[in-house]
Amino acid sequence: MKLGFIGLGRMGAGMATNLLKAGHEVTVYNRSSGKAQALSALGASVATRVSDACRAETVITMLANDDAVQSVVFDDGGILASAGTGTVHISMSTIGVGLSARLAVAHAGARQRFIAAPVFGRPEAAASAQLYIVSAGERAAVDGCAPLFSAMGQKMFYLGVEPPAANLVKLSGNFLIASVIESLGEAMALIGKAGIDQRTYLDLLTSTLFNVPLYKNYGGLIVERKFEPAGFAAPLGLKDIGLTLAAAGELRVPMPVASLLHDRLLTLVARGGEALDWSAISSLSAADAGL
Amino acid sequence: MKLGFIGLGRMGAGMATNLLKAGHEVTVYNRSSGKAQALSALGASVATRVSDACRAETVITMLANDDAVQSVVFDDGGILASAGTGTVHISMSTIGVGLSARLAVAHAGARQRFIAAPVFGRPEAAASAQLYIVSAGERAAVDGCAPLFSAMGQKMFYLGVEPPAANLVKLSGNFLIASVIESLGEAMALIGKAGIDQRTYLDLLTSTLFNVPLYKNYGGLIVERKFEPAGFAAPLGLKDIGLTLAAAGELRVPMPVASLLHDRLLTLVARGGEALDWSAISSLSAADAGL
Amino acid sequence: MKLGFIGLGRMGAGMATNLLKAGHEVTVYNRSSGKAQALSALGASVATRVSDACRAETVITMLANDDAVQSVVFDDGGILASAGTGTVHISMSTIGVGLSARLAVAHAGARQRFIAAPVFGRPEAAASAQLYIVSAGERAAVDGCAPLFSAMGQKMFYLGVEPPAANLVKLSGNFLIASVIESLGEAMALIGKAGIDQRTYLDLLTSTLFNVPLYKNYGGLIVERKFEPAGFAAPLGLKDIGLTLAAAGELRVPMPVASLLHDRLLTLVARGGEALDWSAISSLSAADAGL
Amino acid sequence: MKLGFIGLGRMGAGMATNLLKAGHEVTVYNRSSGKAQALSALGASVATRVSDACRAETVITMLANDDAVQSVVFDDGGILASAGTGTVHISMSTIGVGLSARLAVAHAGARQRFIAAPVFGRPEAAASAQLYIVSAGERAAVDGCAPLFSAMGQKMFYLGVEPPAANLVKLSGNFLIASVIESLGEAMALIGKAGIDQRTYLDLLTSTLFNVPLYKNYGGLIVERKFEPAGFAAPLGLKDIGLTLAAAGELRVPMPVASLLHDRLLTLVARGGEALDWSAISSLSAADAGL
Repeated sequence: MKLGFIGLGRMGAGMATNLLKAGHEVTVYNRSSGKAQALSALGASVATRVSDACRAETVITMLANDDAVQSVVFDDGGILASAGTGTVHISMSTIGVGLSARLAVAHAGARQRFIAAPVFGRPEAAASAQLYIVSAGERAAVDGCAPLFSAMGQKMFYLGVEPPAANLVKLSGNFLIASVIESLGEAMALIGKAGIDQRTYLDLLTSTLFNVPLYKNYGGLIVERKFEPAGFAAPLGLKDIGLTLAAAGELRVPMPVASLLHDRLLTLVARGGEALDWSAISSLSAADAGL
Repeated sequence: MKLGFIGLGRMGAGMATNLLKAGHEVTVYNRSSGKAQALSALGASVATRVSDACRAETVITMLANDDAVQSVVFDDGGILASAGTGTVHISMSTIGVGLSARLAVAHAGARQRFIAAPVFGRPEAAASAQLYIVSAGERAAVDGCAPLFSAMGQKMFYLGVEPPAANLVKLSGNFLIASVIESLGEAMALIGKAGIDQRTYLDLLTSTLFNVPLYKNYGGLIVERKFEPAGFAAPLGLKDIGLTLAAAGELRVPMPVASLLHDRLLTLVARGGEALDWSAISSLSAADAGL
Repeated sequence: MKLGFIGLGRMGAGMATNLLKAGHEVTVYNRSSGKAQALSALGASVATRVSDACRAETVITMLANDDAVQSVVFDDGGILASAGTGTVHISMSTIGVGLSARLAVAHAGARQRFIAAPVFGRPEAAASAQLYIVSAGERAAVDGCAPLFSAMGQKMFYLGVEPPAANLVKLSGNFLIASVIESLGEAMALIGKAGIDQRTYLDLLTSTLFNVPLYKNYGGLIVERKFEPAGFAAPLGLKDIGLTLAAAGELRVPMPVASLLHDRLLTLVARGGEALDWSAISSLSAADAGL
Repeated sequence: MKLGFIGLGRMGAGMATNLLKAGHEVTVYNRSSGKAQALSALGASVATRVSDACRAETVITMLANDDAVQSVVFDDGGILASAGTGTVHISMSTIGVGLSARLAVAHAGARQRFIAAPVFGRPEAAASAQLYIVSAGERAAVDGCAPLFSAMGQKMFYLGVEPPAANLVKLSGNFLIASVIESLGEAMALIGKAGIDQRTYLDLLTSTLFNVPLYKNYGGLIVERKFEPAGFAAPLGLKDIGLTLAAAGELRVPMPVASLLHDRLLTLVARGGEALDWSAISSLSAADAGL
């Protein structure tokens, strides 16, 4: 398939690589050009403008936040103006429900097709094609992209014809992950201050009720207080919980744990934790306990 | 081994049954006598007073709360007064850290031995000897009880010589479970109010990041709003989070998620949910969202 | 002075009336025209378009929310396009800090002057010229408007040259009021469930530590459960706490009580309380206590 | 009247002084004797044992916490054992509702009379007889003590025959004060980080909606960050919010703001703030905002 791929950050680079390996013809674009060159060695064409990545059947975006997606789509020379009729835009970034709805309307207006397909997984999962992909949009369009999804992920879910549904599921998943981090952080502060070995405690948890990589990985980071380099940086976590609360506010759904997580992440960033992994909110629990 | 077993509730009955099956000589005691009779058919001797269950090498208690344990141990004719020198008391109930410390001191004063060995698992796990057992106390005493633990559980952990450590780990584990319930409840309210199928959403979660029975089971209860009969009733959950906060307060460890869970469980009980499973706190998230 | 006054809701009608009484020449505009007619009887000219209210030295806006202000200022035929060079726009609505900053920039660009001057006080205070007015903007412009402020309020404060400062102070004041309501509601639930007379309790509080109309008035509403008609409706409170949190998020200031208030107000609205006074969040405390 | 007065801390010393000034015959007792000597100069008899302060018509206790009261009443040689039939015990300490109920029962059993009469006011108010006194107990007994209350306070309230009612009202009042401190602390962090002068902001608040000494005094401490010497130390605040939550838990009343305050005070103490005034929780809001 002839593809455009926009956004070569820690996630996007791995995903584009896997599309190339699967034999697709990929034109890549990144705001800063260094990253695109690396993919060129693997056979990618390198676009110097967004519009050059839009001469394709399908354009994939994997960007850091709502502003970036908005700009790449709506700006002069953006996807909306540059892509042809019938082109499929797959938005794989974690963006807000409101923006997703606006994209759906705009693409329909331009007779283009829009799929929301955000992913679960950290950069290593992107590199090894082990992502979980949550898609929503017109059924035929999603089916047509199946080969792309299998090149990038280990499992794909279809949430129905409304793209924002996929974004909401993604956001709520990140909320669940953050709540695991916060709860583990509080429990670890308790256990640690009582003088019990935190590693033993974590092994106990993850060999019984919580025998799953998520708890093992984040639990390990918390016990070792290893928050750098960030797999998922605090400001991104703050953004995602903010988007979750915005969607919840719009739908009139109070989420007290999400509110608490937002305050925690805000505190982390305000205290200088911009560069830390979001699991560093556990260090606030420790500090508040005088540890 | 010659055992006394005190407390034949939903958990204790299964545990005592498994000890009998493993060939131990068990004298059982329960405040209301009906339950003891059932075990009699399996070969248990039935005591009509606590003291009659204390003529044993080891006395196990599995009771509903601190008050019950306190009464069975410290009252006239209780374990402390009735058991002989060297007798081991294994306290398997979920009790507070403070009471555990007092029991350790009192038994030492009476030249008896004390092990705290609370368990993870619901009644079905107790019946099928699939409990996880978290023990702490003098090493030799715990080792001597290994055959009993294997008769009742699938895995045993040793937390060191201080009994309260095992109780704190148990409490913090229940805190983690409750926080999973609360977070799932909030996420389900969000997803449900957005018109997305909750069962599909749960399947997605539990076939990816949260592929573990805990999330499947509680997620299922939440989606089906099936809170009766209670596997673990709301007042017990309230008690446990209360004991967690008491221990945290004593240690000077703030736990905001635990505070929030305490308020949720208090609300559930105040609104008439005494007989419901503690996962019914999710129904408060739904109600607060107008669902 | 020759004035335009836009927005004749429960607050604006009283304010415009007081300006007329003070002898100013006022052209009023309201989206629905009924309210303007009442002021016509008092000597106001009635504009049928926003632009007709902009042929004035000073244009005052008193509208329900950010969207309304934005539309009245930026739309075709809005204040920005219609008012002459040097015209002063006094924004007295409770709006967000971000919008206030945008208005300051836009008016400067059009060589108009901008003052933010939100008010404290409920409709009765607006009617009786007892408002507290919090102003910010270029000093000379604010001084020039002093006669207008004294016609509408009992006291004026000047916060400096940056308009958004006045808006932030107003928002944070509403946050403090909401936190008084919430705390009183929780205390009343406690006192009431204990069987103590709530009115006696309120009298005790307000004749000692809390001897101030705010506590007396809201305390009275809470004790009498009198939430209709709404002096300040729940959706407006929700909006204001939302704007407070938005400003706090932008500045990286965690405010856990504000987060809790947001969840409360969201719950109130989700459960059907759209038409109730925001003090009805106290009814949630009562309901959660099973009262 | 012939009085015993037990507890000469910062509050008790002033209160006992005022009773002496009013002409009562007072025998004072304090655990550490230095403070009693100072009162001796004013005409007090100094008891070296609790029992010596109980040969009186009325015995007043003003102690730091539940444990101290419990010990002074129930220990060998305590009030219960030492005071004669008909003696009135006025408990003016801030104690828990549960202890108050136990004291009522115990004194009734000993044919003594029990009044709960906790006070509002800081040490300066105790010294200047400006306390507010909240009483409950048998009407005749309270009436008989009226001269004592007027010697110590500016105003007295009667809450009915059940002593715990007075204690609950006192605790809920401290909860309201703490919630004012927390809200002001959050608002000040917001205002301060926005670069607005905090003193100007406080003056604005306290000359309008919050024109009351409580807001002025605590607001001043927060703006000046003056938390030493402590008028009311953090551990006492933690104890009182803990007692409030205990009473609320017993009555099944969720109080989310109280839970939040408990976490704040716990954090303050855990981080080393034992000696600070409880208003220092505002420094946590500032620190969490990176100020």
